[in-house]
Amino acid sequence: MRAEIIVTGTELLSGSVLDTNSLYLSEELMLIGLETAFKTVVGDDEKDMEEALRRSMGRVEAVIVTGGLGPTEDDVTRKVIAKIVKKRLVLNEDALKAIHARLIGRDYATSNDRQALVPSGARLLQNPVGIAPGFFIDEEGLFIAVLPGVPKELRAMFSEGLRPILEERFGGKTFIRRRVVRTCGMSESAVNQAIQDTLKRGVPVVGLTAKETGVDIRVIARESSAEQSQARVDRTEAMIREKLGDAVYGVDGQELEEVVGALLKQRRLKLAVAESCTGGLIGGRITSIAGSSEYFERGVVAYSDLSKTELLGVPRDLIERHGAVSSEVAAAMALGIRQAARADLGLAVTGIAGPGGGTEQKPVGLVIIALATIQGVKTVEHRFLGDREQVRLKASQMALDMVRMYLIG
Amino acid sequence: MRAEIIVTGTELLSGSVLDTNSLYLSEELMLIGLETAFKTVVGDDEKDMEEALRRSMGRVEAVIVTGGLGPTEDDVTRKVIAKIVKKRLVLNEDALKAIHARLIGRDYATSNDRQALVPSGARLLQNPVGIAPGFFIDEEGLFIAVLPGVPKELRAMFSEGLRPILEERFGGKTFIRRRVVRTCGMSESAVNQAIQDTLKRGVPVVGLTAKETGVDIRVIARESSAEQSQARVDRTEAMIREKLGDAVYGVDGQELEEVVGALLKQRRLKLAVAESCTGGLIGGRITSIAGSSEYFERGVVAYSDLSKTELLGVPRDLIERHGAVSSEVAAAMALGIRQAARADLGLAVTGIAGPGGGTEQKPVGLVIIALATIQGVKTVEHRFLGDREQVRLKASQMALDMVRMYLIG
Repeated sequence: MRAEIIVTGTELLSGSVLDTNSLYLSEELMLIGLETAFKTVVGDDEKDMEEALRRSMGRVEAVIVTGGLGPTEDDVTRKVIAKIVKKRLVLNEDALKAIHARLIGRDYATSNDRQALVPSGARLLQNPVGIAPGFFIDEEGLFIAVLPGVPKELRAMFSEGLRPILEERFGGKTFIRRRVVRTCGMSESAVNQAIQDTLKRGVPVVGLTAKETGVDIRVIARESSAEQSQARVDRTEAMIREKLGDAVYGVDGQELEEVVGALLKQRRLKLAVAESCTGGLIGGRITSIAGSSEYFERGVVAYSDLSKTELLGVPRDLIERHGAVSSEVAAAMALGIRQAARADLGLAVTGIAGPGGGTEQKPVGLVIIALATIQGVKTVEHRFLGDREQVRLKASQMALDMVRMYLIG
Repeated sequence: MRAEIIVTGTELLSGSVLDTNSLYLSEELMLIGLETAFKTVVGDDEKDMEEALRRSMGRVEAVIVTGGLGPTEDDVTRKVIAKIVKKRLVLNEDALKAIHARLIGRDYATSNDRQALVPSGARLLQNPVGIAPGFFIDEEGLFIAVLPGVPKELRAMFSEGLRPILEERFGGKTFIRRRVVRTCGMSESAVNQAIQDTLKRGVPVVGLTAKETGVDIRVIARESSAEQSQARVDRTEAMIREKLGDAVYGVDGQELEEVVGALLKQRRLKLAVAESCTGGLIGGRITSIAGSSEYFERGVVAYSDLSKTELLGVPRDLIERHGAVSSEVAAAMALGIRQAARADLGLAVTGIAGPGGGTEQKPVGLVIIALATIQGVKTVEHRFLGDREQVRLKASQMALDMVRMYLIG
């Protein structure tokens, strides 16, 4: 069974916006058993969109259209689809109610009502997180579904609404199970080398993806029963974990801040952070997890030397002697925040994110991370490659990982 | 003049690899005067590729194909193109020489020679950084160019080889200039309503893109001289600014943290932040800008009630009386951080990011932002829609925007 994804939006043709929706969709479709044979990106132009849709219909079993469901003049998707399936656009009462319910107490423009128009005969897909409803048409061997372009809305609508419909309609011949095994602190080639045997023995490792935050290993199994696929995925994960040990911090969508948070919660420990070059990134990541107030009490962004002294009690002469980016200052920051917050763990980061500020001895990318615990304070020096954003992101990741490593032993 | 980009590669349909080539190409084509009307992604399948190519030929003036020029069996692009233009594949001697020169002292497989095959009559495009040469065919009103899929090779070949050819062939008739006008604090429908007249008078507003951080308005002008296009874009921007006023914070790639930073620097003012529900996000955004230490001295993440009292001097009974999420506490936090940091501006955020913690009176999404300045303290209450991440991102944006609004008077 083959699908085509039609992505609409002129902004996606102008070179400024990256389309991530179709990545998500093609992976999800694959798990159902639908192979994405084509992806087409087309602007907010009625004629072009019509052409793209007509063309898709002959060559695949299912067409998924994203975007163009908004309230404005250039949101033409519903109109074009109605034309192609030769139906009138009708105001859907359920959709209208849902839209109005969403907009209570907010900016409301009559143009929002336009979002309740769907081709007659189409079935509605609820939007759990936004305004525009989606819809699908399943008639005469033709399956077209339309989802909003906002990634969050698209994902929610797909997983809660469209996926079960597609599974019933197209799924069920082979059972696909997958897992992403997430690592940090190892390079792509190191991970590759470590699991090479595993790769060669024909187990279902699909590939590696290297990001600033680490290397992900993607595993996919496709067997004739769900149990078999699951068992194969589980076995492969176990083999990878055996090879990579503690470099594996989680699976699938788990983020390091989530893993660290769960460990802190489990051990009933509190963490406080003192950030210099990361400027709040680590605090931001920790508090992105719901319930983080249980283990995160405070953080400081001690950007200036003075603030390091005032907020963290780092002696002025220590900074003068060793520089703000030094193991000595990092250690003092970690001890300082641990004490000030009366936390179990004090985490501190100081470094040179660039592009300026580097010297031969202390180049851009030099970052020192310190962790103060009941056992004392430990510092680690890193030299990260990349631009300001990459250095900061890598620093936040390795800082969180230092906490994880302490917590797991 | 319209172009289609055909991206080949099964890996781009499997959900794991993001295609960035077409972003680069569509931007470059636009500057030449070629509008990308369609992008099609197709796997390494001869039949599908043939179908996609045949379709493209009728609807655009230029077709750019990327990928599938490698030495392996699944690199079928040259074969399919030869079939479509009804030419034989011939071994190109110049290409063969270039390939051999590249491979001196390296792994060589005879399969590399296959990369010297091009349709007869096609003209070669040199590959300055890799092995596979590209080529183009310009016959009977049909222009097809083929570039390698490796981003580095594609970019080098485009800028050194294909761009001048496209400029001569398609350029010079119209000159395209564009601008993105960035706004925050208004909904998509409110922006739409406000600039509707502008849209209708046929001025070159291309569309709106709504994100958590605000609405972008894309403007493109296409005139017979570069000056005319520029003037038209400038005029349109001025019209939009007139309609939307201070909601416009920047243009093109400018981020709000950059705009706020530039304003602070220009006015020689220092900012300090106290964050509760945003947990460091605002500090992280401010310090993402190189040179931010000139105007950002410190921040605190006062997540617990105790830390609000200890770090910011918020009276305990104020928190008890009004709750941590209240205008009173937000104001005290802003005043507290301003004083502690001896900053000109003290910015504070407290709110309920969710998913838990909401009540009827103080629902999830309630965020209070306070700004303390020499003129006193001001608080604004927001009710943001969305999940935890969206609420926090919106809160960070509106907090930065409050600083901007103060600075521009």
